[in-house]
Amino acid sequence: MFVRASRRPIPRDASQYEAIHQANLHYVECFRRNVGLMRCHFRLKDEDELIAEVGRSADNAMVERVLARLRREGQLGLWDAEKLKLTIFCLIGMVDELLLKIYGQTQPSLAAFQARPQLVASTVSDMWFSTIYGSQSIEGIAPAANLPGLRRVD
Amino acid sequence: MFVRASRRPIPRDASQYEAIHQANLHYVECFRRNVGLMRCHFRLKDEDELIAEVGRSADNAMVERVLARLRREGQLGLWDAEKLKLTIFCLIGMVDELLLKIYGQTQPSLAAFQARPQLVASTVSDMWFSTIYGSQSIEGIAPAANLPGLRRVD
Repeated sequence: MFVRASRRPIPRDASQYEAIHQANLHYVECFRRNVGLMRCHFRLKDEDELIAEVGRSADNAMVERVLARLRREGQLGLWDAEKLKLTIFCLIGMVDELLLKIYGQTQPSLAAFQARPQLVASTVSDMWFSTIYGSQSIEGIAPAANLPGLRRVD
Repeated sequence: MFVRASRRPIPRDASQYEAIHQANLHYVECFRRNVGLMRCHFRLKDEDELIAEVGRSADNAMVERVLARLRREGQLGLWDAEKLKLTIFCLIGMVDELLLKIYGQTQPSLAAFQARPQLVASTVSDMWFSTIYGSQSIEGIAPAANLPGLRRVD
């Protein structure tokens, strides 16, 4: 989709948290700036098989990218393969649903977050990071200077 | 919704993980056994304001229950209130989206998980638990005997 094509490449030496956060922040900004298109996509995928296939392909490609990264990092063996697949789908769906509720305005109690893309992105990034890398020593993965507190607003 | 009404009460002395897991397992089973109804709900909420309101109310009530539990446990002060609200909405949306993909058959690559409700429930429970209570010492919260490995299949 246009989301990936419009993103600056993430530097190879970015920390795991930074890589996750840059990707999420870009997705939040894309969603925010193209909310009509995104809302349309997520509605029409229930009705149109071609649009549904675009979404499924994007999800599957994202799963493959995460698996490739974990393989490169020697992390794949820590996981049960089936549980990891379900977990990545959880993370993907969670971001889509949250952004639909906030920017697609399907949940008015979240409307105030529309103007807080940094907070939205850091919240989902913290969840991605702690879910994927949570059992490691956090200090060992990302320098403290780059890692916002997992429960604080950055 | 019928989901809560049909659930056996969770014992007061259940560990935090057990409480989360019992609630998730019940929701997975409800979704699985009533997939037509659930699929209908999640589709129609885009089209019908009354159905959308049922979903929003259920989400808001769930947020309030989690906040009440954290308040009872003296955990609320550990969180930034806005980040916590977003985080709980992430967890709620993640479960709905995953179950729609698996049982609503919107993602064929997850079809094999239809017969694995225990694995599905433990995956989302692990994410709920580690997100909400992740910065605590796990051993301090739930006896090891009750806590499946966060990355293993139970």
